[in-house]
Amino acid sequence: MDKNFCTLLNQVRKLGPLVHHITNYVTVNDCANITLAIGARPVMADSPDEAAEFASIASSLVVNIGTLNERTISSMISAGKAANMKKTPVILDPVGVGASKFRNDTVKRLIAEIDLCVLRGNISEIKFIAGLSSETRGVDASDSDILGTDNAGKIAKDLAHTLGCVVVISGAVDVISDGNKTAYIENGHPTLGSITGTGCMCSSLIGSFCGISGTDPFYAAASAMLCMGVAGELSYEKAELLGNGSFRVAIHDFISRMDAQTLERLGKYYEA
Amino acid sequence: MDKNFCTLLNQVRKLGPLVHHITNYVTVNDCANITLAIGARPVMADSPDEAAEFASIASSLVVNIGTLNERTISSMISAGKAANMKKTPVILDPVGVGASKFRNDTVKRLIAEIDLCVLRGNISEIKFIAGLSSETRGVDASDSDILGTDNAGKIAKDLAHTLGCVVVISGAVDVISDGNKTAYIENGHPTLGSITGTGCMCSSLIGSFCGISGTDPFYAAASAMLCMGVAGELSYEKAELLGNGSFRVAIHDFISRMDAQTLERLGKYYEA
Amino acid sequence: MDKNFCTLLNQVRKLGPLVHHITNYVTVNDCANITLAIGARPVMADSPDEAAEFASIASSLVVNIGTLNERTISSMISAGKAANMKKTPVILDPVGVGASKFRNDTVKRLIAEIDLCVLRGNISEIKFIAGLSSETRGVDASDSDILGTDNAGKIAKDLAHTLGCVVVISGAVDVISDGNKTAYIENGHPTLGSITGTGCMCSSLIGSFCGISGTDPFYAAASAMLCMGVAGELSYEKAELLGNGSFRVAIHDFISRMDAQTLERLGKYYEA
Repeated sequence: MDKNFCTLLNQVRKLGPLVHHITNYVTVNDCANITLAIGARPVMADSPDEAAEFASIASSLVVNIGTLNERTISSMISAGKAANMKKTPVILDPVGVGASKFRNDTVKRLIAEIDLCVLRGNISEIKFIAGLSSETRGVDASDSDILGTDNAGKIAKDLAHTLGCVVVISGAVDVISDGNKTAYIENGHPTLGSITGTGCMCSSLIGSFCGISGTDPFYAAASAMLCMGVAGELSYEKAELLGNGSFRVAIHDFISRMDAQTLERLGKYYEA
Repeated sequence: MDKNFCTLLNQVRKLGPLVHHITNYVTVNDCANITLAIGARPVMADSPDEAAEFASIASSLVVNIGTLNERTISSMISAGKAANMKKTPVILDPVGVGASKFRNDTVKRLIAEIDLCVLRGNISEIKFIAGLSSETRGVDASDSDILGTDNAGKIAKDLAHTLGCVVVISGAVDVISDGNKTAYIENGHPTLGSITGTGCMCSSLIGSFCGISGTDPFYAAASAMLCMGVAGELSYEKAELLGNGSFRVAIHDFISRMDAQTLERLGKYYEA
Repeated sequence: MDKNFCTLLNQVRKLGPLVHHITNYVTVNDCANITLAIGARPVMADSPDEAAEFASIASSLVVNIGTLNERTISSMISAGKAANMKKTPVILDPVGVGASKFRNDTVKRLIAEIDLCVLRGNISEIKFIAGLSSETRGVDASDSDILGTDNAGKIAKDLAHTLGCVVVISGAVDVISDGNKTAYIENGHPTLGSITGTGCMCSSLIGSFCGISGTDPFYAAASAMLCMGVAGELSYEKAELLGNGSFRVAIHDFISRMDAQTLERLGKYYEA
């Protein structure tokens, strides 16, 4: 384990970066609470009348299209541009892209008009954006899109190269690539897919780590995915016999207690 | 206990139907999580720009007017019509109808323009829709509307006949009628009324069961109400001394662990 | 301890006042659940087509600008005026005022057009409204604004006098003033700031207590802040070793179990 992750975690806890979100109303509360649990400070202002103003004072901006509409798209664009002006990192979570024309058009526009720092999605979403055939139905990765680790690595690397940003593919093995370096994280548990918002929360955690000034977004994204993966394992261990409600509570518990020792002891990170 | 409920539950867990929701922002997270907990897959897209597209790929559509507005009403109508075109079951939860002219007009319009598969509400809401005098104040059933089982059975049966859909009245005793068959479920616990969203979650569970192709919506609705009723009893038993927060967690826990044996052991279902 | 708080709590539990909210979508579920937990009944209708109608049948109205937009501002104004017409208490939670021009303008307009019963915010928000220099960044109180008890008391008292309403400043020590009486509550725990929504929930509790007809809003606000402060201490004690998720569940548990004896035993309230 690179100790860098531990240093980054300590910095998030110490500095409390302000993470502005324009996100969906399904998991927004989980996103706010997980941002607080990792030590950062969430803001969720989505009116076009103020989204850019918040983006310009924030340490990072998370754009999540889970429940987009005309009003919030306008906010995403203006906030993204304001963040770009200040060189504030922008994280895009393209929830459900591939499943509706509206989402496809919106993601295309967001990528064209905003310089992204990190793009995080499941394999179906990332394949769609990469122009590869994918089978998104709803907002979860389709089985036919769940590929072997090697292929996902190439997809992330190529797309990172094309877009000039870090690409994260969440899955049984998480893949992170900036076009040069590619990393794999073998933490996590399938139960993470049985509650809503774990993907969205990963994006909020990436925003939290990217909010530390001067951080390499590749390591920021890896730190975030490590934290969620390790918390997923610990939560499963604790809540396995209890059920989904307890599992969800445990995720928040373990993220709030995550520390350097736990990351070092349990993290399964490797570059290849 | 008719073993049909158990078969249906196993099918939901096996097939994971996609349940599209246009719902309120108060309980939307609970609805998504309960849909996942029973084994189905939730989507919550409420923009007029994509609601119909999601409805046309979904296995069922849940329309909940908890926090309606002009934009989401337009989505409800277009999604409902798209679902009807595909013969996809539509479930309506008329939250708070009777309490404002806006809700009354909207429910009237939804019923006129969309073929419903299941209508689920509390006794005040159902009485209002049935044209009977009711006293809705806020979004809960009024005491004066809480009637004996026999009368609720007749109200549900008559309204089911009139609307040509299954009518579910949630209460101390749940009533389900398709105009011919009428069933009663004597599970549940008053504590279910002390947390928000248990009614909305029932509608999401009905959507999950109705999402199994070829299912009789009468038994689908009964299965859903049985699951929530049994989970309510188990949760009360577990969280009685702890409080509302723990009770809510327990509901999600027990729905995620619900299985055929538990339904058979605890379900109190009878037709009359 | 003045036993008045205990009487008020018992009345909320007995009468179940209807508390209409126009609030943000981040913490709306917490607000609904905490309102139920204290014994009141929440409604959350935010369309301009019905907000005034619900306000006119409610026992109190809570306006929270956490995620405001043009549509909901229009609802806040019309609901506020409808409440004023009926002499129904209006509680304003000016989330993040000082952090964007849009919020500043909105709060100015709300204060100009609506007669407030209670204004509740953190020290940064209240200082901003009082026209004092403040440093709001995001939605939390800034460190430089966190003052000694005496100064906050004067700020609350002066602003209460100017606005003609009760002013509540949440913080390590909560301050409540109606311009004449000023009270301090030394309950609570810093962990309350590590989950989202505890401020919003305080406003919902104030709405619940103000919903008891004939209540002095000064004591209503004090009762609400006492309940949250005591629940915060008990929750910390219980969840300290577990983490944020469990702490949040505990808040809801302890509010739902709050009673006269607990308030008397643990409340640290004094007037000065």
